[in-house]
Amino acid sequence: MKFKELWQERQQLVEAALTAELNKETPVDKTLTESMEYSLMAGGKRLRPVLLMAAADALGADGTKFIKTGCAIEMIHTYSLIHDDLPAMDDDDYRRGKLTNHKVYGAGMATLAGDALLTLAFEVMLRQPGADAQTLVQVVREMSTAAGPDGMVGGQALDMESEDKRIDMETLRRMHMGKTGALFRAAIRSGAILAGASAEQLAALTEYADKFGLAFQITDDILDVVGDEALIGKPVGSDEKNHKSTYVTLTSLAEARKLAQDTVAEAVAALAIFGPEADFLRDLVNYLVDRNK
Amino acid sequence: MKFKELWQERQQLVEAALTAELNKETPVDKTLTESMEYSLMAGGKRLRPVLLMAAADALGADGTKFIKTGCAIEMIHTYSLIHDDLPAMDDDDYRRGKLTNHKVYGAGMATLAGDALLTLAFEVMLRQPGADAQTLVQVVREMSTAAGPDGMVGGQALDMESEDKRIDMETLRRMHMGKTGALFRAAIRSGAILAGASAEQLAALTEYADKFGLAFQITDDILDVVGDEALIGKPVGSDEKNHKSTYVTLTSLAEARKLAQDTVAEAVAALAIFGPEADFLRDLVNYLVDRNK
Repeated sequence: MKFKELWQERQQLVEAALTAELNKETPVDKTLTESMEYSLMAGGKRLRPVLLMAAADALGADGTKFIKTGCAIEMIHTYSLIHDDLPAMDDDDYRRGKLTNHKVYGAGMATLAGDALLTLAFEVMLRQPGADAQTLVQVVREMSTAAGPDGMVGGQALDMESEDKRIDMETLRRMHMGKTGALFRAAIRSGAILAGASAEQLAALTEYADKFGLAFQITDDILDVVGDEALIGKPVGSDEKNHKSTYVTLTSLAEARKLAQDTVAEAVAALAIFGPEADFLRDLVNYLVDRNK
Repeated sequence: MKFKELWQERQQLVEAALTAELNKETPVDKTLTESMEYSLMAGGKRLRPVLLMAAADALGADGTKFIKTGCAIEMIHTYSLIHDDLPAMDDDDYRRGKLTNHKVYGAGMATLAGDALLTLAFEVMLRQPGADAQTLVQVVREMSTAAGPDGMVGGQALDMESEDKRIDMETLRRMHMGKTGALFRAAIRSGAILAGASAEQLAALTEYADKFGLAFQITDDILDVVGDEALIGKPVGSDEKNHKSTYVTLTSLAEARKLAQDTVAEAVAALAIFGPEADFLRDLVNYLVDRNK
């Protein structure tokens, strides 16, 4: 199957699986469930569950068997977006062209919807069929470490504290390793663990995950300025649209593009021990970075 | 050892164990860790870890062996308080005589501190020594179900939606079963599961937990009005201090006291199959309700 068709097929599987995880029959609070569903089913690339399944595919397993764990990580991702958008955080009114959760349900309910999705994620990952207790414990460990203060939440806090400041490249990298990188890593490692990866295979896929995350972030930074090149080189904080340090503002557009390409090459090189089963992962990182051309 | 001495000893163990769980050496974001520590170490009865250890004691185990899981549940409790106090929720400036988290660190960082404590709790419970993978999976399941949309967060949402409304007794009970009862249940059941409870023992301790939670809530409602009896019988929403339905406002002070006493008797009766090892649990529920005399 071609890359784009496979991706679409997997995305559709995730859509169907996600909605089945919400308790709509006997909820303690109906509005809470509606609010969770509003954000969970608001579209999105479903990149993390797709990565999780693709990592299992790369090991010769059928990745779709692990869609339940994929749903769990998508819930964690969605909770982080809901909280990120809150008035006390980024104060965003729209996401993916729809009103943000708190604009529809209020900031109190949106806070609870995020809390509920994060907690439900841990319940859902334990329902993964075909995984023994030892494997489930490993997956919970991957997810909690990645999403917690040493991972995603830590990165978000660092991001919040870096507003309107010029930070150095090392801090920028640490921030993104937490804020977005940690969850990509957890997606890929969880898929690998569920598929019974050897230590060598797990190490290779972890290396891929880290390069994937970095390439993803640089590309995002590039897309933010393309069409608005006047921002490049302007001091951070000098402009409403220029309130954060990025890979572009800390280097240049040309350097950032070069870094993105090099990182993609490293991601692909990390997959050298795998056969054509890993082609989707190879195509994915290439596709991702090609967006900035 | 006498009841109060044992409780104090256990509380002190929890204090020492909690602070050791925070990563203060190499945090991704220092302020985030400080903010987590601020609320986690702000005192409190440590009732949930104490209950967890006492449930294990009741089965003849040494409850202190399971203090790590006790720390995890205290983190979940603390996160819920931080988020509850937020401007978008109850908007409280003080808790236990100290400024609330968001008054010190801002609402954005307080939101993240809560998120981080909830996530870290799942990491910490996996580090419980002396528990096999099957047991750890059971504990994670108890905690996530109790804290999630079908438990604590569901109850919080229902509570938020019940402000300034008269709700019926059934809704009040469902709200409290979620908001406070679910976590008491998870504490006691987790302690029991870690200590290797039989199905009969687990059922008895679950019954105790549910009665304990109910007695706790009724007592809280009584303490809220004692010294302010003028509130009793006033329509809900008629006064700033009278914006919620409670066991007292829905019945009477005398009826609520009677219900509390009956519930304590039921909690103690649920422990009939246990010997003196369960005396602490018996004393605890009696002590708790005696506060309202």
